[in-house]
Amino acid sequence: MVDSESIKRILEQVAAGGLSTEDAFARLRTLPFEDIGFARVDHHRRLRRGFPEVIYARGKTPGQVVEIAQRLLDVDGLALATFVEPDVHAALAERFDGVEYDDLARVASIGRMPEPEAGVPPLAVVTAGTSDIPVARQASWIARAGSCPVDEVFDVGVAGLHRLLHVLERLQAAGAIVVVAGMEGALPSVVAGLVAVPVIAVPTSVGYGASFGGVAALLAMLNSCAGGVAVVNIDNGFGGGLIGAMICRRARLPE
Amino acid sequence: MVDSESIKRILEQVAAGGLSTEDAFARLRTLPFEDIGFARVDHHRRLRRGFPEVIYARGKTPGQVVEIAQRLLDVDGLALATFVEPDVHAALAERFDGVEYDDLARVASIGRMPEPEAGVPPLAVVTAGTSDIPVARQASWIARAGSCPVDEVFDVGVAGLHRLLHVLERLQAAGAIVVVAGMEGALPSVVAGLVAVPVIAVPTSVGYGASFGGVAALLAMLNSCAGGVAVVNIDNGFGGGLIGAMICRRARLPE
Amino acid sequence: MVDSESIKRILEQVAAGGLSTEDAFARLRTLPFEDIGFARVDHHRRLRRGFPEVIYARGKTPGQVVEIAQRLLDVDGLALATFVEPDVHAALAERFDGVEYDDLARVASIGRMPEPEAGVPPLAVVTAGTSDIPVARQASWIARAGSCPVDEVFDVGVAGLHRLLHVLERLQAAGAIVVVAGMEGALPSVVAGLVAVPVIAVPTSVGYGASFGGVAALLAMLNSCAGGVAVVNIDNGFGGGLIGAMICRRARLPE
Amino acid sequence: MVDSESIKRILEQVAAGGLSTEDAFARLRTLPFEDIGFARVDHHRRLRRGFPEVIYARGKTPGQVVEIAQRLLDVDGLALATFVEPDVHAALAERFDGVEYDDLARVASIGRMPEPEAGVPPLAVVTAGTSDIPVARQASWIARAGSCPVDEVFDVGVAGLHRLLHVLERLQAAGAIVVVAGMEGALPSVVAGLVAVPVIAVPTSVGYGASFGGVAALLAMLNSCAGGVAVVNIDNGFGGGLIGAMICRRARLPE
Amino acid sequence: MVDSESIKRILEQVAAGGLSTEDAFARLRTLPFEDIGFARVDHHRRLRRGFPEVIYARGKTPGQVVEIAQRLLDVDGLALATFVEPDVHAALAERFDGVEYDDLARVASIGRMPEPEAGVPPLAVVTAGTSDIPVARQASWIARAGSCPVDEVFDVGVAGLHRLLHVLERLQAAGAIVVVAGMEGALPSVVAGLVAVPVIAVPTSVGYGASFGGVAALLAMLNSCAGGVAVVNIDNGFGGGLIGAMICRRARLPE
Amino acid sequence: MVDSESIKRILEQVAAGGLSTEDAFARLRTLPFEDIGFARVDHHRRLRRGFPEVIYARGKTPGQVVEIAQRLLDVDGLALATFVEPDVHAALAERFDGVEYDDLARVASIGRMPEPEAGVPPLAVVTAGTSDIPVARQASWIARAGSCPVDEVFDVGVAGLHRLLHVLERLQAAGAIVVVAGMEGALPSVVAGLVAVPVIAVPTSVGYGASFGGVAALLAMLNSCAGGVAVVNIDNGFGGGLIGAMICRRARLPE
Amino acid sequence: MVDSESIKRILEQVAAGGLSTEDAFARLRTLPFEDIGFARVDHHRRLRRGFPEVIYARGKTPGQVVEIAQRLLDVDGLALATFVEPDVHAALAERFDGVEYDDLARVASIGRMPEPEAGVPPLAVVTAGTSDIPVARQASWIARAGSCPVDEVFDVGVAGLHRLLHVLERLQAAGAIVVVAGMEGALPSVVAGLVAVPVIAVPTSVGYGASFGGVAALLAMLNSCAGGVAVVNIDNGFGGGLIGAMICRRARLPE
Amino acid sequence: MVDSESIKRILEQVAAGGLSTEDAFARLRTLPFEDIGFARVDHHRRLRRGFPEVIYARGKTPGQVVEIAQRLLDVDGLALATFVEPDVHAALAERFDGVEYDDLARVASIGRMPEPEAGVPPLAVVTAGTSDIPVARQASWIARAGSCPVDEVFDVGVAGLHRLLHVLERLQAAGAIVVVAGMEGALPSVVAGLVAVPVIAVPTSVGYGASFGGVAALLAMLNSCAGGVAVVNIDNGFGGGLIGAMICRRARLPE
Repeated sequence: MVDSESIKRILEQVAAGGLSTEDAFARLRTLPFEDIGFARVDHHRRLRRGFPEVIYARGKTPGQVVEIAQRLLDVDGLALATFVEPDVHAALAERFDGVEYDDLARVASIGRMPEPEAGVPPLAVVTAGTSDIPVARQASWIARAGSCPVDEVFDVGVAGLHRLLHVLERLQAAGAIVVVAGMEGALPSVVAGLVAVPVIAVPTSVGYGASFGGVAALLAMLNSCAGGVAVVNIDNGFGGGLIGAMICRRARLPE
Repeated sequence: MVDSESIKRILEQVAAGGLSTEDAFARLRTLPFEDIGFARVDHHRRLRRGFPEVIYARGKTPGQVVEIAQRLLDVDGLALATFVEPDVHAALAERFDGVEYDDLARVASIGRMPEPEAGVPPLAVVTAGTSDIPVARQASWIARAGSCPVDEVFDVGVAGLHRLLHVLERLQAAGAIVVVAGMEGALPSVVAGLVAVPVIAVPTSVGYGASFGGVAALLAMLNSCAGGVAVVNIDNGFGGGLIGAMICRRARLPE
Repeated sequence: MVDSESIKRILEQVAAGGLSTEDAFARLRTLPFEDIGFARVDHHRRLRRGFPEVIYARGKTPGQVVEIAQRLLDVDGLALATFVEPDVHAALAERFDGVEYDDLARVASIGRMPEPEAGVPPLAVVTAGTSDIPVARQASWIARAGSCPVDEVFDVGVAGLHRLLHVLERLQAAGAIVVVAGMEGALPSVVAGLVAVPVIAVPTSVGYGASFGGVAALLAMLNSCAGGVAVVNIDNGFGGGLIGAMICRRARLPE
Repeated sequence: MVDSESIKRILEQVAAGGLSTEDAFARLRTLPFEDIGFARVDHHRRLRRGFPEVIYARGKTPGQVVEIAQRLLDVDGLALATFVEPDVHAALAERFDGVEYDDLARVASIGRMPEPEAGVPPLAVVTAGTSDIPVARQASWIARAGSCPVDEVFDVGVAGLHRLLHVLERLQAAGAIVVVAGMEGALPSVVAGLVAVPVIAVPTSVGYGASFGGVAALLAMLNSCAGGVAVVNIDNGFGGGLIGAMICRRARLPE
Repeated sequence: MVDSESIKRILEQVAAGGLSTEDAFARLRTLPFEDIGFARVDHHRRLRRGFPEVIYARGKTPGQVVEIAQRLLDVDGLALATFVEPDVHAALAERFDGVEYDDLARVASIGRMPEPEAGVPPLAVVTAGTSDIPVARQASWIARAGSCPVDEVFDVGVAGLHRLLHVLERLQAAGAIVVVAGMEGALPSVVAGLVAVPVIAVPTSVGYGASFGGVAALLAMLNSCAGGVAVVNIDNGFGGGLIGAMICRRARLPE
Repeated sequence: MVDSESIKRILEQVAAGGLSTEDAFARLRTLPFEDIGFARVDHHRRLRRGFPEVIYARGKTPGQVVEIAQRLLDVDGLALATFVEPDVHAALAERFDGVEYDDLARVASIGRMPEPEAGVPPLAVVTAGTSDIPVARQASWIARAGSCPVDEVFDVGVAGLHRLLHVLERLQAAGAIVVVAGMEGALPSVVAGLVAVPVIAVPTSVGYGASFGGVAALLAMLNSCAGGVAVVNIDNGFGGGLIGAMICRRARLPE
Repeated sequence: MVDSESIKRILEQVAAGGLSTEDAFARLRTLPFEDIGFARVDHHRRLRRGFPEVIYARGKTPGQVVEIAQRLLDVDGLALATFVEPDVHAALAERFDGVEYDDLARVASIGRMPEPEAGVPPLAVVTAGTSDIPVARQASWIARAGSCPVDEVFDVGVAGLHRLLHVLERLQAAGAIVVVAGMEGALPSVVAGLVAVPVIAVPTSVGYGASFGGVAALLAMLNSCAGGVAVVNIDNGFGGGLIGAMICRRARLPE
Repeated sequence: MVDSESIKRILEQVAAGGLSTEDAFARLRTLPFEDIGFARVDHHRRLRRGFPEVIYARGKTPGQVVEIAQRLLDVDGLALATFVEPDVHAALAERFDGVEYDDLARVASIGRMPEPEAGVPPLAVVTAGTSDIPVARQASWIARAGSCPVDEVFDVGVAGLHRLLHVLERLQAAGAIVVVAGMEGALPSVVAGLVAVPVIAVPTSVGYGASFGGVAALLAMLNSCAGGVAVVNIDNGFGGGLIGAMICRRARLPE
């Protein structure tokens, strides 16, 4: 079993300046991760990143997901998995108590989600349409798993601009904004033109024909004429939520 | 030389119901077009379409452009050419008097441009940025060549939405709106969400990297979540202006 | 509940010149739309656009579609939905009486479709082949929902040109022509070369191999050498019908 | 030097059935081709194919082209080169008398072009527009180099269908038709729908924006809904002319 | 019902020189095709092309396919359909006697296939691998439906070149060669380098990953360094067989 | 001229809670921007965003750039332009004193760059190779123009991982990291796996062949398996620097 | 039946220098392969290549796979098949005893796998993640079928670099390294930067959105900035293992 | 200055088993590389890889290339640069004596190239055409710089297969084969089907139209149906030569 206390001690020394990163790196390298044959479970990623390790369930058998979840639970008390299809959910529910499953977002959590941390500005999670909600929910899940408060604003796309104007104040108050949109992907540009908050754009595969599974939205977002926009992969609500929440959490750090 | 009177008579009979389209078609087929070896100059396209035949100068030698322009001038009294590079302009200016050359739009006209037709609502020609103006100008040229009034509104992109709000009334009054935008191509969606006028979107190659020479804008426009938008080829201001002006002109026909 | 009378009053003032668009916009922004959590139902889009709001059912749960349809019915008396799969149809049929379902076009309507408006020229809806009919039907549905008469002409592709020549007169009489074609997508160019009516080209995913799900047809249409053609998204019969019907309806306005 | 008589003898034996292809192949393999260091000049391709070896000049230095041309001239009495830029032409003209250079098609011939062979039906070479002529000319060159008569018909694109109807009889009389078109590439489908002759479609890079350097035309041609169409590479007039002329020449063989 | 005798008479006059193509065209246009609502069945395509009209069953309901087949049977005595899935086959088998179904090639024929025509050289149909056979079979079907003899040679791909060398004589004797290959699509180049017969290359979607559903093979074939190769759409064995058989049949015409 | 004091007052009221964003927006909309014909210079973007408006010089004439720069200088005392080619630089240098020109990054500044703001953590700007430096420099420019300190670390790509390990401490201390890389674009993933700081990845067009002008790097970055990475457009060092510096600056705000 | 002894004799003569390759080739060409109608089973590929012929089961019917396996078993005593779906496995298991089936890798073997050959350095097979294991297993299978020892190292992706550092020695000791990775595909570059062993990179389709089914990983690997990397097709673990094992085996040959 | 002796000692200890790779890695990390501001020159890559560090000159200023070359010369006595345009060559020639410049391959070497190492089998470098020679030459350069003998075989493409058969013995004798081809890229498959030697395929941008700058050849090579082929980037003769020579050199190691 991993001695997570020793990991913490090493990192505290780094933070305190008593240990160079390089030396810390050398020591961390010698710490055991768990080699369970088909996976090497990385217990100090949480320590490095402030967010739990998340299991990418696609391409793994239900048995593999259960096994990895068990190791994470043992050490962290929380396991989060994405791309969880019903058969994987069933396997998790059979093994663990209190599995929470969001079938829209295909996310499952096992163990206790943390409380939002005081003093951290919320992550605004915005969608252009109703069909984008499943991807947006991934962002909310990972942010909350990292103790970041979340403010969800759904269905405010550019075809009805007055709906967006109603929520400008909430967006202005966020630490970062995750904007989730498919089809032409215009919403991040419009939002970034209106508020002075970093925008993480998440293109979705909502659309058909020349949306090419989200490519149209992805390209639009990469070409945003409004500064302050960066983009993650198509349908990667999880990734957008992670960097968005990292930004929100750091907004508090210097206090 | 072509007897354009006879063409008109045939078409008038069709309009009057005295001749079926099919019979007219059969007769028109027997009318001479001019075969000048490298081109077959089509003198009744103007009659069919209400707009002059336009010379696509790219891929033609200066001599070929001059020759075709001469034939169009002889019959129509007006020749318009697009993609006119300086060497072609020089050849035209040497042969004809009063060539008007728009070096931004790379359009040249020889002969007399018509006056705007009374009672036709204007074609609004809108650009997202200053760099889109050369393409927009193509639209204005062909519309004016077809006697359609034009209202130009430049640099009202989505990154500064308040600039667009200032011109809503002018857009609302148009017979059709040509919206010219590069980069993320979001402007047509936003415009179509605000006004109840048909929008012809013209993507431009303004941008770099993942704009892929205008593909990002093209895809965004094709995927517009706001209804009432149709799209033409990248940088095809001419094509956008042509269908836009056709719509404006027909808005008057039933009077 | 929304007071649609007040919306109408505002817009009438605009039409009458007694209120600027900008002021009207400011007022409209303060009018309630309905926030039902997963969607913000936009009741004044119909007023802005002259066509009912249409529910894009893909990516929405049957329950969400039913809920939105209910709100639209309450205000407009008509709800139209596209991309309606059988499970969504079943949910609609269970809740509402008189659901009309076109399983070819995957369109459902609830409530009363309006009568065609007198004096509006018909929208011609043309297909290259039999396999393109489902997409074409979407165009007919939205046009009729907007009170625009429709003239359907199916299976007149370029491989048998004589079939097209038989219907030239009907096409010439249209206010606009929606041309629906897959494979090489050549029909819009040929139609636009024969008649002087704006052509809205709808590429379809009919084809295989290097048709790339409709991309071949889309590109052909964007590159049409015949002026007067604009294009909508692949399989977007709905979008083509909407702008086509907008053009037809405006052809009557100045009377 | 190569003893072409011995090659002929081998092949005649094959034709007469006195030698299996396999044995002939083994013998041919032992015949000298000329290894000139940077190239291995293939003197029996003409014998195998009925057409002269053609020098693809792009990517070769002027000196290399001259050297290969010399070897071909020595054996065949004719050298043909494509993609000949002015500097290569200059090098050829300096070394050889009577170089014929088509600067539009960028083709050069050295030596004596053969006469058209009696009894061979002509290859029709058709273009949609004037800008497609340089590519079409490549087809004419290689056909004539193979003794195949050529019938050139230029500028009969689908936007003015009546121009095409004028030449139907000439097309019907051809042994094969090479149809050269850029932009939307619709012409081969229309031609193949009207005549019962094999059509070789040559897409060109004429166009801009979403023509993607000829890809739009290429895809349209590959997806032709009219049977009897096969396609060669973009701007490959030479390849289209070669297979077209092969078909024409074989149409006579059984006599 | 269509009077096919009158069609024949018109065409015979053309063949005899007693009627211009143009006049014939005008007359043919007045002949009834059958408008059955969802399709316009083209009875004189067979006459124009020498091959039966083939029903493209994809995207059509079983009922539509049955209906069109009935009309073709009535006039031609033969109906051929491609992309026939089992449900369509079942519908055909229920209505017609003697349906022949090739479940590999997904082709169905109803009525009597003609005998091979004497004096026509065979169409060689060659595959690189076993997995390419279903596509190759489409080519054989249409060729035989057009009375062209067929010589099938399967599994002679470039990874085992000695297998190809065994069949060179058979290929040399063909009127045209259809080469069907997936993956890297190299076989047409190799075949065209060895024999002096026109090669129609058919790329297949056999492969995975960077074969991109046949695009790799398609591009390889379009870029063939060996002249005498033209290409049809991915998996379009039918189209390859049609033009291949047209070439074979014309090889006999001048006799 | 614009009364920037009044803009500030409005925004201060918003910040103080005495004015809703909506009301502020309405007021801002009524403030004059400068319409100079070909551009509408947006003077309150700086106020909204905390960074100066930057002139995108590509596609603008030198005269247009000079004119816009003048307006920005008049109000802000600083003008920054990107994509500045030598002719534009010459025009700027002729009109203004003290133009600073970075010919590697193609950035020009006119007027006084601000001092770095105390208490703001630095933006780390990292490149994989020497050839990526010009793009990285864009990031440094905009960050410094927004008063954000910058720490540049060049040539630490993954092919020599020991070079990266030397600078881990500097990266760990940053407020955000801009990672600039071409070719396979692997560096952002590796960096994000080692440090707990938000990473903005900037793909560059450095590379050739299958780098497709930066697409390979772009895709790699979008697919980063290490969380905490978001991406901007190819070669968009400016955009990466802008959002990176926005994050750094907000890291201080709660103090 | 094939006389494999005679094949061996020919090749031994070549190895011994008593027969030129060319003569051997000529003789081999005359040896019978088995033509079983739908396939030509190539019994001397094993002899030429040192690895058994492998059956690519995709696109073949279960019966075809069984038949080919029988022929290979008869001659080689071992048959290996890839892309074996459960129905094919069932057919194999019904016909043969001792079928070994790896349902993760979809590989089946019939007959006796050889022992690893002494003195051959192992092939290291490395994966970035757990989801890449099925592809990696293909590599292991073919290597072992060719008597090459295998060292599997799974789940050492770049997001947790310390896991890779643990296995450097094992990688350094390999004869070649097959690196299997999806998503951003960065692992081959990092490995090749650390060890002096040829790296064969295998991109996988693990990922979603802008991974485009493995294209992102493929492009990253092709653009590796670290020399000593070559790439095979997406998900082609078999191909990567084959060339990797060929390299390992030759590393021993000169002894 | 770097003490290369100490580097050698460390690595010798590793080779001798007296030092773990991990410990060696830790020590190497502490050794100085040279930080010259715009580049970090990596002097132990040669030691790790057996080949000199090569300067990728594209995107670097002539001054930067000269500076890096100086550092490499000081330590290694040899500097090699690729993508050397004439201006960079001029700068090198001005600074250093004895610069060897291959203007076809755009490679420059400064200092003494090593002799071929005895006992190493040659790297065969094969091209399909004359136009592929510049890329092939890159492969020869890097192989020779790594002391690997080279056997160049040019212009043996598949359109004239007999030319390839002449050199089979030379290919069979190689340690590895680099096959360089553009257009349809079929040569590597054919070579790998004939000989039992690992093939490194190098696609080139030779071709036009649908060769898409080498993509057609790249895809063909990735989809090779003949095992034993791996691929490098388009036009990356250098990369192909490097891994090819690594394989050749290791073929000797166990002695």
